[in-house]
Amino acid sequence: MRGPAANAELALLLEVAGTPKPGNVDRRCDLETLRFEHFLAGAVGAREGLELAEDGAPIGDAFETAVLGMSEQSGGNTQFGCLLLLVPLVKAATAGDLSPRGVGEVCESTTVADAAGFYRAFEHVDVAVGDPPKGMDALDVHRGADAVPTLRERDLTLLDVMARSEDDANAREWHEGFPRTFRAAESIAADEGPITDRAARAFLDLLAETEDTLVRTQHGETVAREVWQRAGRIDSRAEAEEWADELVARGINPGTTADLTAAALFVALERGVEP
Amino acid sequence: MRGPAANAELALLLEVAGTPKPGNVDRRCDLETLRFEHFLAGAVGAREGLELAEDGAPIGDAFETAVLGMSEQSGGNTQFGCLLLLVPLVKAATAGDLSPRGVGEVCESTTVADAAGFYRAFEHVDVAVGDPPKGMDALDVHRGADAVPTLRERDLTLLDVMARSEDDANAREWHEGFPRTFRAAESIAADEGPITDRAARAFLDLLAETEDTLVRTQHGETVAREVWQRAGRIDSRAEAEEWADELVARGINPGTTADLTAAALFVALERGVEP
Repeated sequence: MRGPAANAELALLLEVAGTPKPGNVDRRCDLETLRFEHFLAGAVGAREGLELAEDGAPIGDAFETAVLGMSEQSGGNTQFGCLLLLVPLVKAATAGDLSPRGVGEVCESTTVADAAGFYRAFEHVDVAVGDPPKGMDALDVHRGADAVPTLRERDLTLLDVMARSEDDANAREWHEGFPRTFRAAESIAADEGPITDRAARAFLDLLAETEDTLVRTQHGETVAREVWQRAGRIDSRAEAEEWADELVARGINPGTTADLTAAALFVALERGVEP
Repeated sequence: MRGPAANAELALLLEVAGTPKPGNVDRRCDLETLRFEHFLAGAVGAREGLELAEDGAPIGDAFETAVLGMSEQSGGNTQFGCLLLLVPLVKAATAGDLSPRGVGEVCESTTVADAAGFYRAFEHVDVAVGDPPKGMDALDVHRGADAVPTLRERDLTLLDVMARSEDDANAREWHEGFPRTFRAAESIAADEGPITDRAARAFLDLLAETEDTLVRTQHGETVAREVWQRAGRIDSRAEAEEWADELVARGINPGTTADLTAAALFVALERGVEP
């Protein structure tokens, strides 16, 4: 039986295999310097950190190890955001309560040391994130381990850090009990057909819910809103494929929505959806 | 750093991602009941057994565990033959001698218990294999664990079993020091471009070398010879893609050549080829 760490790795693979996922790398689409094979290697490399999470290691250590392993390929950042969601979900599954309450408890239990692991993880790979909120310069994630003394001074846990990043869809999952993740997991479970096709549909549904954080960071509010609203008007696979080509041509990559899709796939796998 | 077990899993993933691989499931091709996602789950599930091999477990146990994990998906047999090649290669890599001699020593050291593990593995998944050679009925692999008393009586190691299956290309690798695997690994390392494209080219080169065992088992000598000779005349990616459609339509699946491709990818990864 695949345990939570194995299912988390499989979720990463099924996410990237699902097609069409407009703007993102998928089974049928490579970007110029970021290719499908980089995601395969990223998923395999992340397994060790995911197993640490399953074995009871602190979230910060497990996350940093997963990111370090993920980064052992030449494509750059492939699954940083996915892992930020998957690590607490793996811990909740291992504890036997993979629910909003269960993962909420895992997040509540994070420490300053976990926050330090999160910051250290940014030293292993180049992650596209926005500027820090006002007054948070000392906690800019780009500082990596240099931010750790400030975390200690202010006694900030990893959940505290997430609570200060409200604009980020992944951070919102962290402090709200992963509502979008669990909702999308239910859709995947209720859906029919190959699991990679379900993943692609879940991705589009999530994209139609709200702005993608990475698109907003890289292209601004107007483009993020356009992508969100357009996603809601996609009615067929053919339309999705056409739109996918357009987004790739414009360099628009809804990466945060892919993170949520991977998290939802993990929950669906744990609940018995079978490839 | 990815260890041998992780690289073996990654080799399984890169093999199935390489396209076009005429007749086989790949990144762009699903068969009717055997799909890309089944290979992703098969690779993830095999990891535990591959880690046993890395951790020094006997080959038979590691192989059986890998096959059992691989089979936890609804597509059926995905990577039995790949694992038969990868498990001794992982052990040779772990021992620090990933060479024809090193893997030869691993195969020489197998025991009757390893042969028993190999037979038990056939109980976990339906593998397409030919009839046993004359006088070998008691050792028909379809007997699974029922063949174990005969293995014990005749004192047959796993290498002995392989030596009695000369018609099988994977068994031949076992008793000849993996010559095709190492040669193809050198081609992959010397080749250029994305590693999945190199995998697809290595597959075609291997297919042009000799008859594919699975094609011969499923379709007979004449078809196996036709596929082998046609592979040697494929000159371009476009031709390979056209031929791929033809083979899929005819239900011809050169699976043994895919096994060798995965093994060669593993050796290439261990020697520093980087996705």
